[in-house]
Amino acid sequence: MNDFTYLNPTKIIFGKNTDPQIGSECAKYGKTLIVYGGGSAERSGLLGRVRKSLSDAGCEYTEIGGVKPNPRLDFVYKCIDIIRREDVKLILAVGGGSVIDTAKAASTGALYDGDVWDFFMKKASPTAHLPVGTVLTIPAAGSESSPSSVITKEDTNDKRGCSTPMHYPVFSVINPENTYGLSAYQLGCGASDMLAHLMERYFVNTACCDVTDRLIEGTARSIIKYAPKTIAEPDNYDYRAEILLAGTIAHNGSLDIGRGGDWACHQIEHQLSAYYDIAHGAGLAVIFPAWMEYVSRKNPAKLIQFGRRVFDISAADESIMISLLIRHMREFYASIGMPSTLTELGIGTEIFSEMADKACACKNYNLGSYLHLDPADVEEIYRLAL
Amino acid sequence: MNDFTYLNPTKIIFGKNTDPQIGSECAKYGKTLIVYGGGSAERSGLLGRVRKSLSDAGCEYTEIGGVKPNPRLDFVYKCIDIIRREDVKLILAVGGGSVIDTAKAASTGALYDGDVWDFFMKKASPTAHLPVGTVLTIPAAGSESSPSSVITKEDTNDKRGCSTPMHYPVFSVINPENTYGLSAYQLGCGASDMLAHLMERYFVNTACCDVTDRLIEGTARSIIKYAPKTIAEPDNYDYRAEILLAGTIAHNGSLDIGRGGDWACHQIEHQLSAYYDIAHGAGLAVIFPAWMEYVSRKNPAKLIQFGRRVFDISAADESIMISLLIRHMREFYASIGMPSTLTELGIGTEIFSEMADKACACKNYNLGSYLHLDPADVEEIYRLAL
Repeated sequence: MNDFTYLNPTKIIFGKNTDPQIGSECAKYGKTLIVYGGGSAERSGLLGRVRKSLSDAGCEYTEIGGVKPNPRLDFVYKCIDIIRREDVKLILAVGGGSVIDTAKAASTGALYDGDVWDFFMKKASPTAHLPVGTVLTIPAAGSESSPSSVITKEDTNDKRGCSTPMHYPVFSVINPENTYGLSAYQLGCGASDMLAHLMERYFVNTACCDVTDRLIEGTARSIIKYAPKTIAEPDNYDYRAEILLAGTIAHNGSLDIGRGGDWACHQIEHQLSAYYDIAHGAGLAVIFPAWMEYVSRKNPAKLIQFGRRVFDISAADESIMISLLIRHMREFYASIGMPSTLTELGIGTEIFSEMADKACACKNYNLGSYLHLDPADVEEIYRLAL
Repeated sequence: MNDFTYLNPTKIIFGKNTDPQIGSECAKYGKTLIVYGGGSAERSGLLGRVRKSLSDAGCEYTEIGGVKPNPRLDFVYKCIDIIRREDVKLILAVGGGSVIDTAKAASTGALYDGDVWDFFMKKASPTAHLPVGTVLTIPAAGSESSPSSVITKEDTNDKRGCSTPMHYPVFSVINPENTYGLSAYQLGCGASDMLAHLMERYFVNTACCDVTDRLIEGTARSIIKYAPKTIAEPDNYDYRAEILLAGTIAHNGSLDIGRGGDWACHQIEHQLSAYYDIAHGAGLAVIFPAWMEYVSRKNPAKLIQFGRRVFDISAADESIMISLLIRHMREFYASIGMPSTLTELGIGTEIFSEMADKACACKNYNLGSYLHLDPADVEEIYRLAL
């Protein structure tokens, strides 16, 4: 087990009666910038409840809507302008990962003299930030209690992450009822993303990390059980609560203490969503089985343990265990409406080489810890996913 | 699933190279009172390393040793005197649960005009506190990242707990190597206490709490696997790291979110250690199987799930499942050198009635949530444990 330091400072306010607490949390900081995405938060009545809660708490606010999936740098700049112009004290993200990641980027960018993109290109590190609060509407990214933000620079198709303790939200209101408006496809993409967050942490070569192995396996089992149920019974509060809780735990850092993570599949997928603007969860559902197939040739041990403990697979032969694992993974993805090939997503071989190089470049050609991957390996994984 | 709010503010500094960080953490607060137990922390060289780390960081300190297991209120008063006299800014507990609980009680008591015991008798709530840091030497109580403190008032045999967010340590240094001096019996008692913390959270009637069920089961499996291994190979760092991590997770509050807990066995055991001064973990090892036998008659469902998922027990008949579960529990306790009866601990029936009443009185006669227990029930459980 590796040495580690762990502290997650995000206050999680979870449950069906939590919306009225939003205002009093914001009022602790002062003038609030509400950031949101499309019209769904307005139509569902959530934004109305958020505004009322802030007004009731005597908290001044301004707002900006229009964050898009795979959130863009240009929109971050817009938020930074408002924050500076209106002397905002807290950014309240009402939405999913894209909205939250936008708020996080703006929270450090607003207090930086240079270009916020410097943080994503590792040219500078943030030294000051505004607090961010969140009201979660899409269970997926885990950004509501993580230190990460992922932003896309549209003109160069660069999708890059920046992780800093300054990005932890100060509070996150997670009310499963605020996710009732999601489509089956959005729920499927979310579950795929959560499971990926668990697997990225699971597949490491760290010796003796049994406790966290078990915690990851348990959370994965819950997602595999409750994601299809949530899609089948979208009004079932308890199923949805399991999924929301699992999604937050999957990415709050508590499951990678003492072990680290792999994160190759995330980089490999990020290129797909940067170039083709597909949903991150859909891309992950296609990439993960291909990655498993590819890395199993050189490092099958942890894959076999995952198959045995999460899917109750049992076979004497290693290669049969791998085949059964991949089959179970594909069956799970199918059960939540995810695609199984790049072809289904309309993606061909045209820019595999460019994307493979970019996936590796994002990590300074140090991609993957379970198995190191160079651009030729990544290209092969794209091919396996066709 | 129940609504909840969760934030654990304790910074966990975990691993074999962490001792040098103690001083710099303390120096953030100022003059430090080092609290410790018997001579083992001195003999092992740990106290020397702690003092050196504080000196190196330019942090002034004073100290007091002599905390006993089942820590006494009188010693808390002594700490409070020093804190007030010497204008202490941080209390550093170097030890296990008894030392940490003493430091926590002193941390709120020192800033209270009345008697600190008021907090434990629920006559008052703390409103101010000094920060507490910890250097853990006994994996057991989980007090290193919990909001609880348990103190015994010797003259009346009252063992009482006080739980407040003010009790969360600001940091805890958890170096598995600092526990190498523990006896097999101490390790066994610690593992028993950890497993109890998990089971107290597991046995609830909350509908749909699958994610936390799975997390508890996983942590329990790790303790059951690694506690006997740690006792058999006391110098194995990795085994010990698993146990220390499991012990912290078991009691940091992350496993009871949305579900609550039962906590009857803890109250039933507290009377044993208050009246007979036995080790808490040893008492729990005797009480838990008896409690399982007693409550299974009226509410077997969760016990059966625990047996199936943690011990891989399978039987069609419910009563056989319960018998097998209790047999596995006893086998585990035996494998870590724990007693199996009150008789072995030298405890007879003499004051069962007095202890049973006190166990219920501690909870205002509202003992147990998985199954409500009145004093007659508790007396029966003591009898089953004979």
